[in-house]
Amino acid sequence: MRGLWLEAQALRLRDDLEAPVPPPGEALVRVRVAGVCNTDLELVRGYYPYAGVPGHEFVGTVEAADGAPEWRGRRVVGEINAACGACPACEAGRRSHCEKRSVLGIVGRDGAFATHLRLPIANLHAVPDALPDAVAVFSEPVAAALEIQQQVRVAPSDRVVVIGAGKLGQLVAQTLAVTGCRLQVVGRSPRPLALLAARGIATATDAAIEPRRADLAIECTGHPDGLEIARRAVRPRGTIVLKSTYHGKAPIDMARFVVDEITLVGSRCGPFAPALALLADGRVDPRPLVEAHYPLADAVAAFDHASRPGALKILIDC
Amino acid sequence: MRGLWLEAQALRLRDDLEAPVPPPGEALVRVRVAGVCNTDLELVRGYYPYAGVPGHEFVGTVEAADGAPEWRGRRVVGEINAACGACPACEAGRRSHCEKRSVLGIVGRDGAFATHLRLPIANLHAVPDALPDAVAVFSEPVAAALEIQQQVRVAPSDRVVVIGAGKLGQLVAQTLAVTGCRLQVVGRSPRPLALLAARGIATATDAAIEPRRADLAIECTGHPDGLEIARRAVRPRGTIVLKSTYHGKAPIDMARFVVDEITLVGSRCGPFAPALALLADGRVDPRPLVEAHYPLADAVAAFDHASRPGALKILIDC
Repeated sequence: MRGLWLEAQALRLRDDLEAPVPPPGEALVRVRVAGVCNTDLELVRGYYPYAGVPGHEFVGTVEAADGAPEWRGRRVVGEINAACGACPACEAGRRSHCEKRSVLGIVGRDGAFATHLRLPIANLHAVPDALPDAVAVFSEPVAAALEIQQQVRVAPSDRVVVIGAGKLGQLVAQTLAVTGCRLQVVGRSPRPLALLAARGIATATDAAIEPRRADLAIECTGHPDGLEIARRAVRPRGTIVLKSTYHGKAPIDMARFVVDEITLVGSRCGPFAPALALLADGRVDPRPLVEAHYPLADAVAAFDHASRPGALKILIDC
Repeated sequence: MRGLWLEAQALRLRDDLEAPVPPPGEALVRVRVAGVCNTDLELVRGYYPYAGVPGHEFVGTVEAADGAPEWRGRRVVGEINAACGACPACEAGRRSHCEKRSVLGIVGRDGAFATHLRLPIANLHAVPDALPDAVAVFSEPVAAALEIQQQVRVAPSDRVVVIGAGKLGQLVAQTLAVTGCRLQVVGRSPRPLALLAARGIATATDAAIEPRRADLAIECTGHPDGLEIARRAVRPRGTIVLKSTYHGKAPIDMARFVVDEITLVGSRCGPFAPALALLADGRVDPRPLVEAHYPLADAVAAFDHASRPGALKILIDC
């Protein structure tokens, strides 16, 4: 099959990949559209030593589902962590933290920048017919944005600052806006801030942050600087949620977090069902974030485009 | 009056200090005994630019209390944050995070390594007669240890690892033992671990930590390495409480906290009333931690002793 291959931090298109053969309990999915995430870009930069097909944001059509024929032909999105079901983390109900997990396009499992992928049937979520592929493909990052609300209570009276107005910050802001909180998004470029303003979300540059007033700050920049901006924004005993991952160590003055009794919460994958519901009823609308579509044949160029400073979502039609 | 003076990271004994003159609402306290804390040592190392009398762990006798004569002659300990009562933090009930606070011996208020100090009367707590000075002087660090339980729920089923068996780790471990949790303290030197073992608390060296199993890890080492040890000990979605402050920035791979969805909680000052109660009924017993007493005249030597690797609590008789 055709797919994008990452090895030794180099990407190339291959036509000689073996099509996945799903083991019992897994489905074969024909990928329709896949999205390029910052984690994909970080994988290329060496954030994690991965060799294989990258890509974990997708919408596709089920071609085969062992023992579950009702899934055949259905349009689906899928949770990216494939769990063992038997380790202490799985037994404690933390399946996305399974100690033996594979992760689509990230850890030990070929991903979505290919014609086909395989995933456990248990990971699939049917996509409502009315939801276009170019919206459904955002299910995974919207779910990741909703993980914040699984971890931290967000009340309408809370002052919440989102640091970063890129792909992730946009979706985090849209999901937080649903809570009715007092929301502000901090970014550097006028274009993404204008997208938020068009939705009625308050925006600012980081120089304009009111210091030490936010109850909650969400770090979505993908840069070590983002944590320092969040720290300046948040009040004593406030909370900072870390959404972005980046390669390497950042120098951090931990004493400030102790003196101000700040809570930092690492936040990764989230729930798909509410993500699909928000996309279906339009309360989260990712369409303005789509910057370009590329055919799978041009996937390397798609990554180049996605790597440009300020690029929003690049989709690959597989 | 006589007192220890810190300026430009140098300590010296002075006999020419002006005795404090308490403004309305504050008490004049004759210091009886004061304890040397790692924060004092970090102040000398330049953790925070402080010039004045250091010291914030004390027990003393009230000599004067404006408008509150019932305090005169009483033996007291005192909360170290003097709040303005009017800023947003005070109005929100976070008085220890007052934006205009002074902090005894740390920020804008001369401290306890002197014959006298002044503190708001509202900060004072009477010491039960049966509690010796050398026990009551631990009220402040025991309160700081109890702050953990104000911030994080600790259940008997929780696996809790305390990283660091020094002065702070010892008290943190004793206060956590009261909860009945599954407690283990990790340290390097045999002597402090033996003190814990004598109280029935499990101990280990860091090489013996079971990786990724603890629900809660408490960082008490005072070194950047401690956070990395805590991260290795804690399970995904577990919590790390940061109790120790140190000067400078530590290189930290924040992506690990995101992927494992770890929560980090900075933790500082805590409640005095339960600290006094635990000291009074002996459930927390700091007496084995007292390594030496020095007279105030030898306070510089007391700091030298407290700076030795592995030193436990040094008390200064003022």
